[in-house]
Amino acid sequence: MTDPFVVIGGDAAGMSAASKAKRDDPSREVIVFEKGSWVSYAACGMPYYVKGSVDELDDLVAMTPETFREERDIDLRTGHEVVSINRGEQTVTVATGDEQFEQPYGDLLIGTGAQAIVPPFDGFDRDGVFTLRGMDEADAIERYVDTQEPATAAIVGGGYVGIEMAEALTEHGIDVTIFEMLPRTLQPFGEEAARIVEGHLRDQGVDLQLETAVQGFSGGEAVDAVEVEGDEDPVPADIVIVGVGVAPNVELAEDAGIELGPTGAIATDEFGRTNDESVYAAGDCAEATNVVTGEPDHVPLALTANRAGRAIGATVAGEPAQIGKTAGTAIVKAFELGAARTGVLDAERAREAGFDPVSVTIDAPTRPHYYPGATELTVTLVADRESERVLGASIVGRKGTKRIDTVATALHASLTVTELQNLDLAYAPPFSPVWDPVLTAAKVLSGKLEG
Amino acid sequence: MTDPFVVIGGDAAGMSAASKAKRDDPSREVIVFEKGSWVSYAACGMPYYVKGSVDELDDLVAMTPETFREERDIDLRTGHEVVSINRGEQTVTVATGDEQFEQPYGDLLIGTGAQAIVPPFDGFDRDGVFTLRGMDEADAIERYVDTQEPATAAIVGGGYVGIEMAEALTEHGIDVTIFEMLPRTLQPFGEEAARIVEGHLRDQGVDLQLETAVQGFSGGEAVDAVEVEGDEDPVPADIVIVGVGVAPNVELAEDAGIELGPTGAIATDEFGRTNDESVYAAGDCAEATNVVTGEPDHVPLALTANRAGRAIGATVAGEPAQIGKTAGTAIVKAFELGAARTGVLDAERAREAGFDPVSVTIDAPTRPHYYPGATELTVTLVADRESERVLGASIVGRKGTKRIDTVATALHASLTVTELQNLDLAYAPPFSPVWDPVLTAAKVLSGKLEG
Repeated sequence: MTDPFVVIGGDAAGMSAASKAKRDDPSREVIVFEKGSWVSYAACGMPYYVKGSVDELDDLVAMTPETFREERDIDLRTGHEVVSINRGEQTVTVATGDEQFEQPYGDLLIGTGAQAIVPPFDGFDRDGVFTLRGMDEADAIERYVDTQEPATAAIVGGGYVGIEMAEALTEHGIDVTIFEMLPRTLQPFGEEAARIVEGHLRDQGVDLQLETAVQGFSGGEAVDAVEVEGDEDPVPADIVIVGVGVAPNVELAEDAGIELGPTGAIATDEFGRTNDESVYAAGDCAEATNVVTGEPDHVPLALTANRAGRAIGATVAGEPAQIGKTAGTAIVKAFELGAARTGVLDAERAREAGFDPVSVTIDAPTRPHYYPGATELTVTLVADRESERVLGASIVGRKGTKRIDTVATALHASLTVTELQNLDLAYAPPFSPVWDPVLTAAKVLSGKLEG
Repeated sequence: MTDPFVVIGGDAAGMSAASKAKRDDPSREVIVFEKGSWVSYAACGMPYYVKGSVDELDDLVAMTPETFREERDIDLRTGHEVVSINRGEQTVTVATGDEQFEQPYGDLLIGTGAQAIVPPFDGFDRDGVFTLRGMDEADAIERYVDTQEPATAAIVGGGYVGIEMAEALTEHGIDVTIFEMLPRTLQPFGEEAARIVEGHLRDQGVDLQLETAVQGFSGGEAVDAVEVEGDEDPVPADIVIVGVGVAPNVELAEDAGIELGPTGAIATDEFGRTNDESVYAAGDCAEATNVVTGEPDHVPLALTANRAGRAIGATVAGEPAQIGKTAGTAIVKAFELGAARTGVLDAERAREAGFDPVSVTIDAPTRPHYYPGATELTVTLVADRESERVLGASIVGRKGTKRIDTVATALHASLTVTELQNLDLAYAPPFSPVWDPVLTAAKVLSGKLEG
C-alpha cells in the first residue's frame, strides 16, 4: 500500500490538495498537519471582519476541521507542527504538545504559507501594534478597536493590506495615517493607478505620508505615537497596523535541502513539484511561472494557492494536472474605488524580461454618455513595441474594474494589442459603451505603436 | 488624383469608416450618402429613450452631421439615397429630392444596415403598431405612449428588442404581453439562460405567451387587440411592437452583382472586401467570420459594425487592417437581470460545425459567502469533447454578467477548458469569490470531460 499523502499546512493550498486527492483517490490516506487551530480560512476577508462587514470571524472559515474529517475523510490534525522533513526516509517529524513522532509519506506537500515581514521597528512589542496575517491577529485587532476605542491609527505600508485596513478603521471613526517609505502606494499597480487611489484616500480623510520611513512606536505599555526618520514630530497613533509585505515560510523546506528559486520562495515545476519528485510546494511559500515573462515569480495570492493545491491533489491521485501560471492579477477595494492590475506594468521589470514596453493611459466611461449611472475607468495598457504583445494593465474606477480579467485572459493567450482590440466583447447600454474601455485602450495603444 | 472614398449609409459602420479614412489620409475626399436624416446614432439606446432613462432622442446621437462636416471634413450628405452601384464605371447613382446624379468612387463602402422583418400580419397598418429599427420609430413610439396612454401592450418576438421594450413599457405602467412563436425567448442565449430570464419577466408582471403565433392586429383606426392562431380569444393591446428580427439590406449590392454569403448578408473577406476589390461592406448588411466555427456569420450588432467600419477606413487610407472576427457576444438587460452570451451555445449548430458539444450549467455567487451583497450567477459553458476547446457560454444574474468577456476572449484565443480554468483572474472579496464563477464552470466542465 502506498504511504499517505501528507500535507504541511491546512490553509488554501493544503486543504485544496487534500480534498482533491481524497476525492480522486478515496483509498489513499491523506493527512494534514496544521500547527495552528484555523484551517481553510479566507485571509482576504480579515480586513472586512475588522471593518464590521463580516459579523463573525468564523464566517471566514470555508469549512471546519470537523467537516474535513467527517465529510471528506481527511485526517486533519490541528495543533500539529511539522518540525523537519527527512527526505531519505520519506518521513516528517511532527511535534504536538510535548510529543514528537515520525510520519511516513508517499507524497508530501509543503504548504507552509508566508508570514508578515516585521522590520526592526523600536517598540514593536507595545500593545496596540499589530501585523495582519492570521485569524488570531484579526481577532485581536477587532477586540482592541472595540475595547480601547482608538481615536487615531497608523498604518505602516501602502499595499493592499494597508489600504484595506485604512478603510476598515476609518469605518470605526478612527483618523488614519498611512506611512509609505516609497514615493507611492500600491507598487504593483503602477503609478497611474496608484495616483488615483491616493487622491481618493485623501478625499476620504486618510492622511498619506509618502516617502516617510517609520523608525518605531513610542508610548507606555500601549503605543501612542509613531516616530518617523528625520526631524518630524511623532504622529499620534492609538493603534498601529504594520503591513509591509510577506515573506515565504521556507525554513522547513530549506533545512531539508529543497531548492528555493530566484524570488526566495520554493522553486517548483509546472506540476508544483520541487527538486525532490515526492515533494510538492504550493501557495504563499512557493513560486509559480509568470505568464508574461516565463520566469519564476512569487505571487502570494489566494487563487494561485487554491489552484496549485487542487492540481497537486489531482497529480498525486494519479492524474497529473498543471498548476497553471500566474499573471499577478490582483484587485483591491479602496473605499469607493476598485483598482485592478495584471501582468507586467513596471517598465524596468519589462525591460529586464527582454521587452521594450510602450504604454498608454486612457479614461473611458463604463456606459455610453446618454445612459444614466456611467462612471469613469482609467485604463493603463502596456505592450512590447516590436512584438506588440500585451504585457500588462491596470484599471481603476468606481465600477467595472473586473474588466481586468479580459486583459489577464489576453496575457495567458499571448495576444497582441491588435488581437486585443479585435475581441468581440459584450455591449449594451446598461453594461458598456460600444467600445469597452479595454478595447479603447487597445485602440489608442495600437495607434501609438504604429505612430 | 484618387477618386473619393464613397460610403453608403451614415450609421455605425459608415461613419466609423469615413472618420478613420479621413483621419489617416486627410487629403482623400470622403463622401457619405445617407438616405435619412439621422447619422451615427445609438440604435441600442432607443428602448431606453422609450423607457424614459434617456431624456432626449438627440442624446442618442454620438455626433451631429455638422460635426462630421466641420470638424472631420467629411462630405456627409443626408437625404441622399444611392439607388445603384455601377461597378463598370466605378460610380454610384444618387437620388436626392427630384434629382439624380452620378458620383465616381475610388473605393466604396456599402453600409446599408438591416431592416426590421415585417411578417404578413393582418392589420399591420393600424395606428399603434410599430417596429423599432430607426430613430423616427423610437420617436413615434414615445409620442404614442405619451399621447394615447395605452393600458396594454403586445410585443411580438421574444428577442432582445422585445425584452428591452417590455421593460420600457412596463416602466410606463402598461401591462405587457410578449408573444413568441418558439418554445422559448432569447434563442441565441440557450435554454438555461432563457428560462431564468423568462421566470424573471413573469415575476415583473410580463405575460409571456410562448409557442404562440400571432395572426394579426384588430381594431379600428388604431389597434386594440392581437389575434393569435388557434382558438384563443384576441388579447387586448393598445400598442403593439413587432420585433421578430432583422434582415440585411442587400438589394443594392445584389443588383450590382456583389455576392451574398450563406447567411444572406454580403460576403466579405478578412478586410471587409466584397468580390469586387474596390467595394467593401460592413455593419448589419455584411457577414463576418465566426471565431468558433470559422464560417461566415451574420451578427448585426453595434461593435461588429463600428470595428469593421474603422478597419475599412484604415485599409482604404493605405494601411490594411483586419475587420476582426465575431464571437456573437451579446448582453441584454431584462429588468433587474443581465443575460450575456458568446460563441456557439446551440448543440445542433455546434455539431454542424464539426464539434461534439458537452455543456454544464452551474450557479455561483458573485462574492464569497461571508461578504455582503453577493448575488447569484448562472453560467453555462460549452466545450468540444475531443479537443476540449471552449465553444461558448451564457451568464445570467443580477450583477457581474460582463464576465462573459473572459469567455469571449478565450474563444478568440481558442483556449481549452483546462486553459480557461487556469486563468489568473482577479480576486478580492468585494469583487469575486476566489474561484470566479467562470473558473468554477470551467472546473466543473473539465471534470465532466474527464469523467
